[in-house]
Amino acid sequence: MGRAFVRLKDIAEHTGFSVNTVSLALRDSPRIPQETRSAIQAAAQALNYLPNHIAQSLVSRETRTIGLVLTDLGNPTLTHVAQAIELRLAAKGYSTLFASSNNDRDAEAKAIEIFRSRQVDGMLIYSRGHRDLDHIRQLRRANYPLVLLVGDIDADIDVVCIDERAGAHKAVRHLIDLGHTSIGMLDGADRFGNAEKREGYLRALSEAGLTPAAIVDPGGFSSQHGYDAMSRLMAAPERVTAIFAVTDALALGALRWTQIKGLRVPQDVAIMGFDNIEFGQFAATPLSTINYEVEQVTTLAVDRLLVLIGSKDGLPPPIVTMIEPDLVVRESTEGRRG
Amino acid sequence: MGRAFVRLKDIAEHTGFSVNTVSLALRDSPRIPQETRSAIQAAAQALNYLPNHIAQSLVSRETRTIGLVLTDLGNPTLTHVAQAIELRLAAKGYSTLFASSNNDRDAEAKAIEIFRSRQVDGMLIYSRGHRDLDHIRQLRRANYPLVLLVGDIDADIDVVCIDERAGAHKAVRHLIDLGHTSIGMLDGADRFGNAEKREGYLRALSEAGLTPAAIVDPGGFSSQHGYDAMSRLMAAPERVTAIFAVTDALALGALRWTQIKGLRVPQDVAIMGFDNIEFGQFAATPLSTINYEVEQVTTLAVDRLLVLIGSKDGLPPPIVTMIEPDLVVRESTEGRRG
Repeated sequence: MGRAFVRLKDIAEHTGFSVNTVSLALRDSPRIPQETRSAIQAAAQALNYLPNHIAQSLVSRETRTIGLVLTDLGNPTLTHVAQAIELRLAAKGYSTLFASSNNDRDAEAKAIEIFRSRQVDGMLIYSRGHRDLDHIRQLRRANYPLVLLVGDIDADIDVVCIDERAGAHKAVRHLIDLGHTSIGMLDGADRFGNAEKREGYLRALSEAGLTPAAIVDPGGFSSQHGYDAMSRLMAAPERVTAIFAVTDALALGALRWTQIKGLRVPQDVAIMGFDNIEFGQFAATPLSTINYEVEQVTTLAVDRLLVLIGSKDGLPPPIVTMIEPDLVVRESTEGRRG
Repeated sequence: MGRAFVRLKDIAEHTGFSVNTVSLALRDSPRIPQETRSAIQAAAQALNYLPNHIAQSLVSRETRTIGLVLTDLGNPTLTHVAQAIELRLAAKGYSTLFASSNNDRDAEAKAIEIFRSRQVDGMLIYSRGHRDLDHIRQLRRANYPLVLLVGDIDADIDVVCIDERAGAHKAVRHLIDLGHTSIGMLDGADRFGNAEKREGYLRALSEAGLTPAAIVDPGGFSSQHGYDAMSRLMAAPERVTAIFAVTDALALGALRWTQIKGLRVPQDVAIMGFDNIEFGQFAATPLSTINYEVEQVTTLAVDRLLVLIGSKDGLPPPIVTMIEPDLVVRESTEGRRG
């Protein structure tokens, strides 16, 4: 996809003036003769140039502040990433402001708009819907520096993210390798149209000639949600011997449920999380999981954003970077398996 | 220098109407003929005028945005409070921006300055030092609406906070009531000069005629810190039979350590946290703790801040509200005690 918008450079080429002169003329600077200003402004209009006060503010005034939009402050992985990003940006001389959408689409749009109106130099965004990106794509097309922290290969926006599909595939492949054939899933992401982890789960099963034992939507991502969803998951007609939960918090709730019910983990049921939060490592039965590569995501996303911010003359074409996360094996899947 | 934003004046110049007419038209005032309103609104749109924030700030100087300064995004209690505050402020028509100091004094001052320069209507602040408040007191004296979420009775600033001293006293009193006389403490707060929890611990011991068995600084507040500090705490000359940790995350690390070492909780050692995070409830040995009264803190702090924001003729005298937190008893102190 090429860019559809007119840049200062295009107006410069069209009129024969320098980019600098064009920029000043479009801001109606008295440093440019009135006649030249009028000519350039007429050309801009003829070329359908959209006056972009954000781009103008970036040329004239940097705020050295970045906006980070999160979906859920209750998710330890996201706040861990937020902290790492804040520290890395601080080392580069930038301050970070955070906003949360609480997984609400309107709140997300509002948070982005607030950052834009407060003139942050750029944004890092966890969007609620990994493919519901039109409102963000619009900013990108207006030359606004931003990097998505979730997203799709077809985003047409810069993305640095964990390859959730590959991670989920790895998790379920691990359970299959341990001999499990009846694998259930706790999936809270489907409601938002985010199907990556489910796709990875289904692909791993399909490659092994298996079908899903049961898929339950816990209605959220917390331990309480995981705990409450377990009775439904374990009541499935096919007896589930292994569970893939889309977050560690869900998995820790599931773990507590098995304990209350007197089920042994992993002997009676193996439990696999996703994220590698610290509380999973310190659980009574340490949790097998997929490592959210916080350092890599942080480093690559911040560096990419700073490249975009440094691109004064229009943004370079978007790059999508998907990081394949590592499998972390602990006792909840094979530690004490006899 | 280019201007950052399109102003009412720009729309006035562009359309030929007065600033006053433009302002009224953008607020859709019936005092302006419908045709004129439509023309002005169309011009505003064409110029990428940002109606919400800028117009409001020009007319009333309100941005309907609040800044919340946190000390540590890795602390689940703080992010839980942040989420609750964000939701309550949203219900009141305010957006929330967050910043984190990472418990660094300079970063805290910088975060506050950034919020101030972005003209948030008010601030809620977790300061690193509960008594290191001069930089905040200065803002207060300049009539800036702000509420501290930690602090002291002598803050001379509005405060809404948990009474940490009373909470710690309650926690240690509970251990004493169970018969413990050798009670150790994991205290990561002393480095920042925040002595409330330690004072509560010492007072409860003193009232019972006891002395501290051991006090260890884990160097932070995470589970890893708690885990690593345990060998030092348990190596104290006096054999510790009960532990008061200043956060649940520390306590969960301590719990894991006892498990690895084959100690039974609470029979061999009782463990008491502080905060009541969800992961404590779902631990293998559910954690006794002090409940951080998130709802009360949120409600009272937000409501107080809105009172301050509404005080157009100077701020009313500061009010300090300390909420006494409840004891939550679970298995880690007396559940399976014989």
